[in-house]
Amino acid sequence: MTVRVGVIGTGIMGADHVRTLTTSVAGVRVSAISDLDEQRAQAVAVEVPGARVLSDPLALVHDAGVDAVLVASADSTHEELVLACLEAGKPVLCEKPLAPTSDGALRIVETEVRGGRRLVSVGFMRRYDPGYVDVKAGLRDKVIGAPLMLHCVHRNGFSAPGTATSGLITGSAVHEFDVVRWLLEEEITRVTVHRPRSSSLVVGGTSDPLFVLVETTSGLLADVEVFVNAQYGYEVRCELVGEYGTLLLDEPEQVRRRSSRSRSSRVSLDWRDRFAEAYRRELQDWVSGVAAAEQRGASAWDGYAATVAATAGVAALESAGPVPVDLEKRPDLYESR
Amino acid sequence: MTVRVGVIGTGIMGADHVRTLTTSVAGVRVSAISDLDEQRAQAVAVEVPGARVLSDPLALVHDAGVDAVLVASADSTHEELVLACLEAGKPVLCEKPLAPTSDGALRIVETEVRGGRRLVSVGFMRRYDPGYVDVKAGLRDKVIGAPLMLHCVHRNGFSAPGTATSGLITGSAVHEFDVVRWLLEEEITRVTVHRPRSSSLVVGGTSDPLFVLVETTSGLLADVEVFVNAQYGYEVRCELVGEYGTLLLDEPEQVRRRSSRSRSSRVSLDWRDRFAEAYRRELQDWVSGVAAAEQRGASAWDGYAATVAATAGVAALESAGPVPVDLEKRPDLYESR
Amino acid sequence: MTVRVGVIGTGIMGADHVRTLTTSVAGVRVSAISDLDEQRAQAVAVEVPGARVLSDPLALVHDAGVDAVLVASADSTHEELVLACLEAGKPVLCEKPLAPTSDGALRIVETEVRGGRRLVSVGFMRRYDPGYVDVKAGLRDKVIGAPLMLHCVHRNGFSAPGTATSGLITGSAVHEFDVVRWLLEEEITRVTVHRPRSSSLVVGGTSDPLFVLVETTSGLLADVEVFVNAQYGYEVRCELVGEYGTLLLDEPEQVRRRSSRSRSSRVSLDWRDRFAEAYRRELQDWVSGVAAAEQRGASAWDGYAATVAATAGVAALESAGPVPVDLEKRPDLYESR
Amino acid sequence: MTVRVGVIGTGIMGADHVRTLTTSVAGVRVSAISDLDEQRAQAVAVEVPGARVLSDPLALVHDAGVDAVLVASADSTHEELVLACLEAGKPVLCEKPLAPTSDGALRIVETEVRGGRRLVSVGFMRRYDPGYVDVKAGLRDKVIGAPLMLHCVHRNGFSAPGTATSGLITGSAVHEFDVVRWLLEEEITRVTVHRPRSSSLVVGGTSDPLFVLVETTSGLLADVEVFVNAQYGYEVRCELVGEYGTLLLDEPEQVRRRSSRSRSSRVSLDWRDRFAEAYRRELQDWVSGVAAAEQRGASAWDGYAATVAATAGVAALESAGPVPVDLEKRPDLYESR
Ligand SMILES: [Mg+2]
Ligand SMILES: [Mg+2]
Ligand SMILES: [Mg+2]
Ligand SMILES: [Mg+2]
Repeated sequence: MTVRVGVIGTGIMGADHVRTLTTSVAGVRVSAISDLDEQRAQAVAVEVPGARVLSDPLALVHDAGVDAVLVASADSTHEELVLACLEAGKPVLCEKPLAPTSDGALRIVETEVRGGRRLVSVGFMRRYDPGYVDVKAGLRDKVIGAPLMLHCVHRNGFSAPGTATSGLITGSAVHEFDVVRWLLEEEITRVTVHRPRSSSLVVGGTSDPLFVLVETTSGLLADVEVFVNAQYGYEVRCELVGEYGTLLLDEPEQVRRRSSRSRSSRVSLDWRDRFAEAYRRELQDWVSGVAAAEQRGASAWDGYAATVAATAGVAALESAGPVPVDLEKRPDLYESR
Repeated sequence: MTVRVGVIGTGIMGADHVRTLTTSVAGVRVSAISDLDEQRAQAVAVEVPGARVLSDPLALVHDAGVDAVLVASADSTHEELVLACLEAGKPVLCEKPLAPTSDGALRIVETEVRGGRRLVSVGFMRRYDPGYVDVKAGLRDKVIGAPLMLHCVHRNGFSAPGTATSGLITGSAVHEFDVVRWLLEEEITRVTVHRPRSSSLVVGGTSDPLFVLVETTSGLLADVEVFVNAQYGYEVRCELVGEYGTLLLDEPEQVRRRSSRSRSSRVSLDWRDRFAEAYRRELQDWVSGVAAAEQRGASAWDGYAATVAATAGVAALESAGPVPVDLEKRPDLYESR
Repeated sequence: MTVRVGVIGTGIMGADHVRTLTTSVAGVRVSAISDLDEQRAQAVAVEVPGARVLSDPLALVHDAGVDAVLVASADSTHEELVLACLEAGKPVLCEKPLAPTSDGALRIVETEVRGGRRLVSVGFMRRYDPGYVDVKAGLRDKVIGAPLMLHCVHRNGFSAPGTATSGLITGSAVHEFDVVRWLLEEEITRVTVHRPRSSSLVVGGTSDPLFVLVETTSGLLADVEVFVNAQYGYEVRCELVGEYGTLLLDEPEQVRRRSSRSRSSRVSLDWRDRFAEAYRRELQDWVSGVAAAEQRGASAWDGYAATVAATAGVAALESAGPVPVDLEKRPDLYESR
Repeated sequence: MTVRVGVIGTGIMGADHVRTLTTSVAGVRVSAISDLDEQRAQAVAVEVPGARVLSDPLALVHDAGVDAVLVASADSTHEELVLACLEAGKPVLCEKPLAPTSDGALRIVETEVRGGRRLVSVGFMRRYDPGYVDVKAGLRDKVIGAPLMLHCVHRNGFSAPGTATSGLITGSAVHEFDVVRWLLEEEITRVTVHRPRSSSLVVGGTSDPLFVLVETTSGLLADVEVFVNAQYGYEVRCELVGEYGTLLLDEPEQVRRRSSRSRSSRVSLDWRDRFAEAYRRELQDWVSGVAAAEQRGASAWDGYAATVAATAGVAALESAGPVPVDLEKRPDLYESR
């Protein structure tokens, strides 16, 4: 009854997921942990009663004491590990990206389709954020009519040192690519990238901010400001514009302080702070789905489509105009969402 | 390692708690359920793998398969059941009120003190609401200086038919009494109740709204509007006024809709909607505390003090001026919070 | 056609009014200025083409080049000057209070009634604030049903040195007394004053903040926090609670800044900053009324009623319970508002 | 001392301006009114003491009783009337556009330069909106660092029947073109127009909404959603993104209503409602400037630059990529703003 999860990767996100699974999710325990850095894995495991540390992540995948696998290791390892899970017939939740390249993601899709059963979930946690869920509910309830435009803002306080410009697309804008697909239930057809004046506080030649335009099958236009050195904090917002109204998702704000001639509320520090509840719900839903033998959350197809859009976005960085997003035909396995 | 919880009472709150414990709380399973209405208990238990239904709540308390007890039955049963838990040496989370009368609450305190170990927690869930937690953190961080006043609003859309005026004090204002004590870490000394013009939509002679003034040891004045037939929805707000700033807790609001000449956001339907996350955190903390052999959340002393304040509030309904709140001396057992 | 206004008193408010009349109000010019400090009057007059300085305020009232008088001199002079205007048959806009004592205000009322024509307006500028006007319109349009309670907050950053506790009533709460009367179109029947814990930043024994309760003819209860050393800035708010909804007047806020982990908007510096537009509209309406031979804004009766309520409030400072507000019978002259 | 203004055009805006000048602006009177529809002019004049109706607008310009002219007639008449004012040496406030074509606007600039004195103001009223003024002040005060992007939203409830797609650029986006130039004090270099999916509620083949990208000399990128059939109301917003913070101008909102499970505030009906105070300040500043013999507000150069940008925008409607904005060299006469 209790789902035994093996976690691969104990960096910031992986360690957070172990903690959340152990302290805030029902019906699960973390039974095995693996990391390239075995000491780091040990340090995490010590807080988890009954968790073993395995040095070989593939051994973890195949371990009899592991019912399902959470992949939070380096992006370059995702494809191999997810394929191993498919081979082992085990449900897997893979942090985004499903794979760094479209080809790699497609191989996962094809392998899963051959297996005939959806086992792969991708960690697009915004689908679980109460705010995004409300926006989607509002759209479904026809309160704004047919959607026409989506304006998005995605800001981080500071990027990791050495972040390439392409990282703004593959690491940040990719969340909006998934939001566009999930919210509108259509595919992305083209991506254009503009480079506004860059912040002088950004070193090493990175273009930051970027302004990304995304078009969908029905002709909806989404625009995304990506600014990963915005200094003041982390902020994600969007406004969905419909034929007779709009839905605006803002930062949650419950407590406002009056002091020093100002009324103010706190801006999030980073995505973990902002999306803590979304991560918890994502993990709970995944675990409950594993127990119910159902794949939940973003599918392998969603992971593949996001990677293809991100790849087009990276190409668009060097292109004057729009770059098309060409997807394979969607297999029947992914018909229902 | 997994805490086995027995739940007594499967009305709206009890059934909700069973669901939350089963689907959203780590380290716990509901192993036994009891209700006066055995069919209702069965209907709830059917959703919980491994849960037995016991017809006798006292048998549930003493059952070997129950590590801790959650009491969500009728108010009049609380005292007896909590005393039974103390006798059985089992941790108990009792929905408020701890007991309907000050004497009853005091008997629980005295029994627990004799036992020498804190086992009783009271379901004042606002202590777990992220907004209230932020207000308390702001106060501690000295961002507004010493507190001077607290303005509170507590509105329900509709009261249960037949609600007596005293129910506004014992069922609603009592939450603010606990908030005042928890936030300020002082005791309440006096309560005054005013009866503003009553809503014509309220039938049966109930005075609604009420306006309640609460004074504390340090002379802080809190005022509470209690309005349980506010029609438009459920809303809880407060503003803590300090020497050089204030902290204002408003309804959470993340998505705003533009439509029909209006920008709007949704008001909560009721307290379960508004405080769903607070309940989840309360239950998680209680379960984690049980596993760690620590009492967490509001203590029996807190439950007693709230009942004494509520009793004074009810007396104040019939009094022109303030009614004193006289507490026994606080036992050492409740020194640390 | 152009109304020629004489201004008595060129302190902060008087000088502001001269500037507003000269630069932002249609159909008027300031033709005469008087102040005890003649140099101060000269300094103001120099900016106003065609304005003469008169040393005797009573001469100004009777000057042939003055069609209407604005009284912004010391409170103690109001009664004499307003009575002189009545004697001269000239419209007068008197800054609040109409008179410091109820008796003085009543003498003005009686004199005006004897004259048979409303000439006196009192400077309760909130009646012209777009926010308060919206609240009143919402009440009239029945969007919240019958009013039951009114919660008010009135904060200043700092009080003038040496402000007595009674000054919180007569200088600040008096605005809310007028708001209650104007908004609800009923009279105040009782006033109670509570002294919460005082700010340690207030010197000289002043009780600050105060908490004032006001009851009206229909049984509506209004509560007012008056805090004149709130440090962080100037803020006026209210929430009118009706049978099926509320109207909440907050500080206007149009531009929000994101910076340093915070979203913030500016709090007003003082009442002139906050109510600049209300003052402009008040003056424009008064001038237009003078041109149309109509008294507009708060009447002498309103000024009298506010003074009586303030007097009761001052008495309530030393009383444990409520102090009644006893008004004379309202003369027919003040029937229509 | 009183400026005598002649108003040409008594359509909605012209009639509003007459009313504002007469009832809310200091130091002015409307002395002459002209309209193609003489009856309409009469109906407006009847409310203005001392105003004559002239059938010939050019006669009005040259009338000895007219010190300054306000042009609010059809766009096609602007050039001729403004040139007549320059010939007569009279200050003129011309509603936007200064002229429908770049050539026409340039002729005005050249004529004014030859005259050696700035007499022309253009009615870009947003420069007087308190919100925009605050944004500009924040930028100047360095609270957000160097500006990098500007996100704009410009929505009307409904467009006039038969509005062509180009009208979204020349009638609506042109305000944002002026805002970009005024706020950033740089020129626009390129304009791109995207056509998102169109609202099905728009008839006659108009593309609505549009999404317009504007680039400036320094490389700043501004984006503008123009949506003139947004149904729900009128709304203008912007967010200026700087190197370490942002400034977000939202709709003013002072009163919030709670009712029917919703907290809501009113959306403006149209631009006159939203910008009423901006218009008043614009007119007051223009009148005060006329009295002081200074040109204030947007200059003829600003009117010309906006028309050139709008012309590029219209061309961009039919172009796949950006269209350059080529301005003449700015004459010295327009050095200071
Ligand atoms: Mg992620
Ligand atoms: Mg409770
Ligand atoms: Mg005043
Ligand atoms: Mg305009």
